[in-house]
Amino acid sequence: MIYKILDNKSVVDYVLNIPSVSKMFSHKEAVTAREVGDGNLNLVFIVSDDKNSMIVKQAIPYLRIAGESWPLARDRMRFESQALALHNKLAPGLAPALYHTDLEMSLVVMEYLGKHVIMRKELIKRKRFPLFVGHISTFLAETLFKTSDIYLTGAEKKKLQAEFINPELCKITEDFVFTNPYKESPENKWNHVIDPEVKALRSNGKLKVAIAEMKEGFMTHGQSIVHGDLHTGSIMINEKETRVFDPEFAFYGPAGFDVGAILGNLTLNYCSHFVRTPDVTERESFQAYLIELIRGTWNEFARKFDELWQKNNKGELCPPSYWDFPGGEQAFAEYRRKYIKLLLQDTAGCGGCKMMRRILGIAHVEDIEGIVDPQQRAIAERLALQIGARWVTERASFNSVEDLINIIVSVAGKKGK
Amino acid sequence: MIYKILDNKSVVDYVLNIPSVSKMFSHKEAVTAREVGDGNLNLVFIVSDDKNSMIVKQAIPYLRIAGESWPLARDRMRFESQALALHNKLAPGLAPALYHTDLEMSLVVMEYLGKHVIMRKELIKRKRFPLFVGHISTFLAETLFKTSDIYLTGAEKKKLQAEFINPELCKITEDFVFTNPYKESPENKWNHVIDPEVKALRSNGKLKVAIAEMKEGFMTHGQSIVHGDLHTGSIMINEKETRVFDPEFAFYGPAGFDVGAILGNLTLNYCSHFVRTPDVTERESFQAYLIELIRGTWNEFARKFDELWQKNNKGELCPPSYWDFPGGEQAFAEYRRKYIKLLLQDTAGCGGCKMMRRILGIAHVEDIEGIVDPQQRAIAERLALQIGARWVTERASFNSVEDLINIIVSVAGKKGK
Repeated sequence: MIYKILDNKSVVDYVLNIPSVSKMFSHKEAVTAREVGDGNLNLVFIVSDDKNSMIVKQAIPYLRIAGESWPLARDRMRFESQALALHNKLAPGLAPALYHTDLEMSLVVMEYLGKHVIMRKELIKRKRFPLFVGHISTFLAETLFKTSDIYLTGAEKKKLQAEFINPELCKITEDFVFTNPYKESPENKWNHVIDPEVKALRSNGKLKVAIAEMKEGFMTHGQSIVHGDLHTGSIMINEKETRVFDPEFAFYGPAGFDVGAILGNLTLNYCSHFVRTPDVTERESFQAYLIELIRGTWNEFARKFDELWQKNNKGELCPPSYWDFPGGEQAFAEYRRKYIKLLLQDTAGCGGCKMMRRILGIAHVEDIEGIVDPQQRAIAERLALQIGARWVTERASFNSVEDLINIIVSVAGKKGK
Repeated sequence: MIYKILDNKSVVDYVLNIPSVSKMFSHKEAVTAREVGDGNLNLVFIVSDDKNSMIVKQAIPYLRIAGESWPLARDRMRFESQALALHNKLAPGLAPALYHTDLEMSLVVMEYLGKHVIMRKELIKRKRFPLFVGHISTFLAETLFKTSDIYLTGAEKKKLQAEFINPELCKITEDFVFTNPYKESPENKWNHVIDPEVKALRSNGKLKVAIAEMKEGFMTHGQSIVHGDLHTGSIMINEKETRVFDPEFAFYGPAGFDVGAILGNLTLNYCSHFVRTPDVTERESFQAYLIELIRGTWNEFARKFDELWQKNNKGELCPPSYWDFPGGEQAFAEYRRKYIKLLLQDTAGCGGCKMMRRILGIAHVEDIEGIVDPQQRAIAERLALQIGARWVTERASFNSVEDLINIIVSVAGKKGK
């Protein structure tokens, strides 16, 4: 089908013409659509009859520089559909179900998540999600392990690698997570109450070297297919279910980038409650909960990753026969331990960059940005910068997630000093 | 042109039909060809008139499993021609000149190196090449720096990365450099005089973990386009010129893999002279020369790489504006120092694996394999295994090439103990 931009009427015709999709509607004459996207990059339609709903997400050309950027826009949807298909295969139930892909039309048809809410917004309200740690650690372990060289043959990995070379979206992360926030750049925004801290950070040679090291890893370490933008705004959740969505940034990168996105964004939320939740008991209780999420997410992820490795060591990297010697079992365990320790250190480094850039760069998070008073907001922002910087610069000494947590607690304890 | 296997007659017709190539022959009626390849994987023709010569190298299907492996054979020539073109562009005069590529015919037409000899064979004869260090360090610095994210934009690098995904040839290295030599595998060959050492090495847990780490880096660290097989048998040389050839293994991998190939193969030659050169004065003189090559190759490579970086810091990784702050110059210098130190450690790890696999695996080197008496050969082999193992396991402590050299000299000094 030749590309055309859909509207509330033509999207209905479109879905009713796809047999595998239209059969989900029992009352075809009752199907209607409404567009709910922000209109900048994608159209998002909820298409429903009186019983069922689905999402149609269509990429449109960049409005401001339409034409020239067109091929880029189309490719964006290819990565999203490929990654959604992969996540559905590797972590079923933890990503929106994918009903249909049409690359000519630059669209995907997928599950409507009407009973889920965006996790970031709920954490701001101090909502708790009892199954989150279990779900996200499974999502991370399954997607990161099963796209690594530990699980795949060399040929399988390299085929996927070719499909997931994603220059335009990687460039956004390279610029806006790893470079521009730490130097003068016109699109940077920050709270001028913290001007001295921002200036000091941008002139901190040791930190700048450490951030450059993280960027090098992001650009060269093709370890696993990462989601690439796994913050708490990319997670739809409720008491029973968790769905990771918007994986258009997916590419072969360092596995710690995704884990760090989760831990970093939980920590940003932690920082925000020093202002958002003045009641000390309530605050400490929720912050303790957030620390449990951080601890649990890492520990469960690491445990599941290691378990998957022991049970599925069938890839190219180090097959069982390689460890078949007296003492081989211990050597294999030691190798896994070292691999996962490096993954923790990458998690800290990437997570730290992701925290800092949300204070210094173009894109902030509602947890902190929603604090209206700049003086109050600065309290959370200073904490986030300090924790992020220490995660990055001290990462090589980390042995367990307690090292990351100790920094959060220690920096937060000295708040305002 | 539809693929057909050339012979001594049809190859002449072929080259005379390519105007850009045929114009190199002033006496077209005098052009003749002779096939000089080993006939297993490639046909290599020298095509000459009475004055000029050129090489036509054509990939043929794997003889043993022809048919099924055919697409693989064609791709092999694509990587060789791409890499040759790249090397001619980045390091002109240090690779055979490329006259013509025909992917349909799976062939390249390139410079005939009639005045050059294979470096490995000459080192066996204790020949010296006064310009080698200068040439090889330039080749390494130019090709590794200018294909890295330091020099290229993200988009340029990712385009090259897609072109250089080379699964079949990488698999050969993954198996035969990083895996099979260190475990039981039917194709392994080794001198049974050193059975005890081989058994001990294959059960050395610490070493096995370190080798697995090197393999992970080879499979995931897309730092630079490496030649991928840069041993002294891939270098044609004479007093004045050096040409690196046979780059069919080229892919985005760790830069240290190429540098390590050079240093490791020079060290294998060093080990061989304990047997090959019984005259102590002559031996010590040549071994001192080899040490100078090792020292010079690393130091000149590192110096040129750093100099290129300072003069051409125009890529995605860390642009000048990132270091534009008080103390930024020192921070930039510190980052370069750390980057190059990791490159040295990778060089040692990769070089060590390449030494060991030449003693334990399927493919040996003439320097050592040419020693007929197994007891005598074992002297060189034991040294190579010990040096290789220490380079790999101790690499994280290395700060300069002197650390690698100290291990060579120290192990060689304890020879036979």
